[in-house]
Amino acid sequence: MSTQPRAQSAMPRVLAFDVFGTVVDWFGTIAREVDALGLGVNGGEFALAWRAGYAPAMDRVRKGELGWTRIDALHRMILDDILERFGIDTLDESARRALNLVWHRLDAWPDSASGLARLRSRFTVCALSNGNLSLLADMARHAGLPWDLILSAEVFRHYKPDPETYLGVCDVFDIAPGQMMMVAAHESDLAAARACGCRTAFVERPLEYGPDSKHPLPADAGFDLRARSIEHLAELLGC
Amino acid sequence: MSTQPRAQSAMPRVLAFDVFGTVVDWFGTIAREVDALGLGVNGGEFALAWRAGYAPAMDRVRKGELGWTRIDALHRMILDDILERFGIDTLDESARRALNLVWHRLDAWPDSASGLARLRSRFTVCALSNGNLSLLADMARHAGLPWDLILSAEVFRHYKPDPETYLGVCDVFDIAPGQMMMVAAHESDLAAARACGCRTAFVERPLEYGPDSKHPLPADAGFDLRARSIEHLAELLGC
Repeated sequence: MSTQPRAQSAMPRVLAFDVFGTVVDWFGTIAREVDALGLGVNGGEFALAWRAGYAPAMDRVRKGELGWTRIDALHRMILDDILERFGIDTLDESARRALNLVWHRLDAWPDSASGLARLRSRFTVCALSNGNLSLLADMARHAGLPWDLILSAEVFRHYKPDPETYLGVCDVFDIAPGQMMMVAAHESDLAAARACGCRTAFVERPLEYGPDSKHPLPADAGFDLRARSIEHLAELLGC
Repeated sequence: MSTQPRAQSAMPRVLAFDVFGTVVDWFGTIAREVDALGLGVNGGEFALAWRAGYAPAMDRVRKGELGWTRIDALHRMILDDILERFGIDTLDESARRALNLVWHRLDAWPDSASGLARLRSRFTVCALSNGNLSLLADMARHAGLPWDLILSAEVFRHYKPDPETYLGVCDVFDIAPGQMMMVAAHESDLAAARACGCRTAFVERPLEYGPDSKHPLPADAGFDLRARSIEHLAELLGC
């Protein structure tokens, strides 16, 4: 692992950001909102259970078991399931709809908006999230995220880590994979991007799963860059 | 025609904007840039010829004669053709590429950025253009256009006025057609949106085709709103 871009290659032109966990704090926002509802459950545990249903739900789409389904609908399926598991029967349809939209109003990490703004001075900065387009648009407005372009699995009709997503970004910008850098707090996302020929930047988010997290940060796994925040990434990239 | 929203219906939630001509001044920008190249041709005539090739080129895609092809590539095909027709043989490959990108750096009309910003106070404001995504992202940065979301024919793999584009916007935002208002300086775009059940706002752009334009502004054609600028549209919509 290096903390500088590979000396032998030119800089990337486009930075594509994972969003949930990397740019915004899903755990903290959902835990606070669920706690505020006074449902008699631990908001943090509820947030973790909701998020835990996410990858399996997308895998059902990725394997063709479910047709194309947006994250909004997958989040709702998982929500209905965990409300039952947590023994909560006090939320009616409109309350469930409102709670499901918490994913549209997640708070950003403190360094995200300012770090993205710095990076835009030298790069085209886009989202590449499994979140659907309207979710990402609402979130950008809520959290003040200054994307040049919001790209989503919804555009490519494939969820990450399918190669169609990373290569789709390169296609949109008419660039070679080596001119795109994927930025994420998750090794699996970066490994899949690297397999497509893209560059990778790992952002450490030790609080992604809350203060009692059992998710250790990865050791060096061949990332081109490793940053402690998006502001730090901007510094590493000379912005 | 009314200058107020229909009294019987609630306000739209999403405003989708046509871009070329409605938000940005393709004629003026291209005429100035071509004149500055000193090619010995009239920049305005060159701009009109380039634009005149646009609808027929898209129609080839819409009719299936050409597979899905981005506007960047269509603009380049038309450019090569008109350079020959204008008798210009002094532009090499890199000069042609650079000139083709003029569509990525079109200047906005003076009221566009401020009008869109006002409209965002009450509505979700998105682009719905036949321009490709990277073109629209570059243009938003160049002209300071504060879109909540950039949508494009490229997302829907259909060019306007195909209904898949207008209905695609409604699908992205999970709204009924009546909750979407299409905003454009072109009757045909609005007629197609209206046929899908969307609301319509006409923006007058008498200089779209230059100061010597032979394109008369339409008479009342059943638009929900008719505005003299995007600032005026914001006023009509109470922003």
